[in-house]
Amino acid sequence: MRKEILKQRIKQVKASLADARCQALLITSKADVTYLSGFTGDDSWLIAAGRSTYLVTDSRYIIQAQRDCPLCRIYERKGRMADAVEDVLKKVAGVKTLAVEDTIRLSVFNALKKKLSVRLKTIKSPAGVCRGVKDEFEVAAIRRAGRIAQTALSQILPKVRVGMSEAEVGAMLEFEIKKYGATIAFDSIIAFGANAAMPHYLPGSRKLKKVDTVLIDFGARFGGYNSDITRCFAVGKVNKLYEKVYKTVFASQKAAIKAVGPGQSPDVIDAAAREVITTAKLPPFGHGTGHGIGLEVHERPIISSLSTTPLERGNIITIEPAIYLPGKFGVRIEDDVLVTETGKRILTSPLKNDEVPVLKIKN
Amino acid sequence: MRKEILKQRIKQVKASLADARCQALLITSKADVTYLSGFTGDDSWLIAAGRSTYLVTDSRYIIQAQRDCPLCRIYERKGRMADAVEDVLKKVAGVKTLAVEDTIRLSVFNALKKKLSVRLKTIKSPAGVCRGVKDEFEVAAIRRAGRIAQTALSQILPKVRVGMSEAEVGAMLEFEIKKYGATIAFDSIIAFGANAAMPHYLPGSRKLKKVDTVLIDFGARFGGYNSDITRCFAVGKVNKLYEKVYKTVFASQKAAIKAVGPGQSPDVIDAAAREVITTAKLPPFGHGTGHGIGLEVHERPIISSLSTTPLERGNIITIEPAIYLPGKFGVRIEDDVLVTETGKRILTSPLKNDEVPVLKIKN
Repeated sequence: MRKEILKQRIKQVKASLADARCQALLITSKADVTYLSGFTGDDSWLIAAGRSTYLVTDSRYIIQAQRDCPLCRIYERKGRMADAVEDVLKKVAGVKTLAVEDTIRLSVFNALKKKLSVRLKTIKSPAGVCRGVKDEFEVAAIRRAGRIAQTALSQILPKVRVGMSEAEVGAMLEFEIKKYGATIAFDSIIAFGANAAMPHYLPGSRKLKKVDTVLIDFGARFGGYNSDITRCFAVGKVNKLYEKVYKTVFASQKAAIKAVGPGQSPDVIDAAAREVITTAKLPPFGHGTGHGIGLEVHERPIISSLSTTPLERGNIITIEPAIYLPGKFGVRIEDDVLVTETGKRILTSPLKNDEVPVLKIKN
Repeated sequence: MRKEILKQRIKQVKASLADARCQALLITSKADVTYLSGFTGDDSWLIAAGRSTYLVTDSRYIIQAQRDCPLCRIYERKGRMADAVEDVLKKVAGVKTLAVEDTIRLSVFNALKKKLSVRLKTIKSPAGVCRGVKDEFEVAAIRRAGRIAQTALSQILPKVRVGMSEAEVGAMLEFEIKKYGATIAFDSIIAFGANAAMPHYLPGSRKLKKVDTVLIDFGARFGGYNSDITRCFAVGKVNKLYEKVYKTVFASQKAAIKAVGPGQSPDVIDAAAREVITTAKLPPFGHGTGHGIGLEVHERPIISSLSTTPLERGNIITIEPAIYLPGKFGVRIEDDVLVTETGKRILTSPLKNDEVPVLKIKN
């Protein structure tokens, strides 16, 4: 079954090659290599040419590549990547123009240009486009990654104590995620109090107080696929301002999710989220409302005011509006949403209501 | 003090600008941005022009940037990066040619070319070159990152049990590292038995047996700086072949470290490591003998047969020879080594002798 999926993906990407009038395609981005080959290691490239697909890797990954990649010829490079590409292209007849993903590093592109006798043509990653639309196996993997993350959070919340540092809470959470055989999707953001007003804060030595606020932005990666979730809590008791902000962010997320569906322009979703916040006379968040998620934590499509490519069935996006009050606190609520044929399905377990969850914590 | 160091670094990089006949420099690689500004977030660029240095970031990182970067003007972009760069360059008089690090993505470079009216010139990252030579604060950070990692390992070894999975051991180890306020340098490699023959294996569900072998390749990141260490163990008892391989790898590492010093060519160090292994009629490893380590886990200088730029005082490199016997096991021993004025200093705590460490493990 997995073999069939990989075959289908490669076929789709090779079709785009013909459109670009190229006879071969070089793929250097890790997520695209994984998507087309099944390979889970690093530092490896894919060359799709004619009927063959080559994985160019090195001695560190040979056994792993043989295990991971049912459809690829494995090419072990001993020297530089450009030499290996030249060598692989010799094995394929009739390559005049090699398409190269434009996510390639300029220095690497220049090295290829110097080495290769074929013409190079840079193109937008065709695999990147395909990856925007998830098949049922990818949907299942992301949902599972979400479930692992949420189970881990529910396991550690009762263990949180006054006086614990953000770093300790993060360590507990990530330990729990790994216990389920997953890895972390990204370094968890654990922010107490005013630290949560920094949207991408990383956990530090700040200790939890008896009365406090907590923001946790985290995710698990399972089978290569990521989840991304944010939850906020009050500790001890809730102050009025926090409550107002929390309820507003909840309503903002609800409005944005309501706007999600096939054919919808992302800027409309972004505007829906913002409107709720500005109507409440609170400061809207500076970042986008969400992003695609899959083999990468951030991928297409982007949900922002600048983005107008209509959503399609199979897109999976985060919806994560927020309000940040510098010096006070921040609230962000984030779930992962699948665009379906008729609307959407939330893949994570969303909040049941807009009541601020209060952690009753032992000293 | 920290301000003085940053000032010195920026001065050094700006000096290389004049050589390249450029009036401004755009830095896009994360480690280089951190090195020159102190900034610890993502998705941000640095523009050094005239007397000013600008950090171009977005709303997510403004507070963090103000806290992290004593010497930068903080520019908050609302739209695309290319627009922000254009806007910043308007603030500086006389920029005709903008130098751009060649680690930039081709798509981003093309977007800049389209947008900007100044000439672009790609150069090898001048910050990358400076980063190869560590100052005393960087040496202290890497040594501390090594100490945290090794303390974490010594804490968890007594807790390892027969029947535990590689993933569980990894989760414990990484939890311990985070407890010390560090983060992990990279996803730990925990490989039991034959899995260790894959140099870059990631931990899975394989469970530890009563008689087994273990490879652990791991590191901590502290204050932005990484350590990278590999240790191997036998469980229960040691078989003859494992013992022979272990002693050979130990001797290989010793020979390589002996060869480290200022002015030494990396290919000589690489050859010294390999010679011990081939003399013992065992298969030499396919990867390089080591790599520079600092803000990135892999950076300059590379210690391989292809690399001939002499080492200099202040380089910090890993030395990690190995022997992999597919289907059986793998042994790798890795420490982090500073090149000093007169020779070297091992920053991690190296093994005391070539006896195979045997874990006596409870069921």
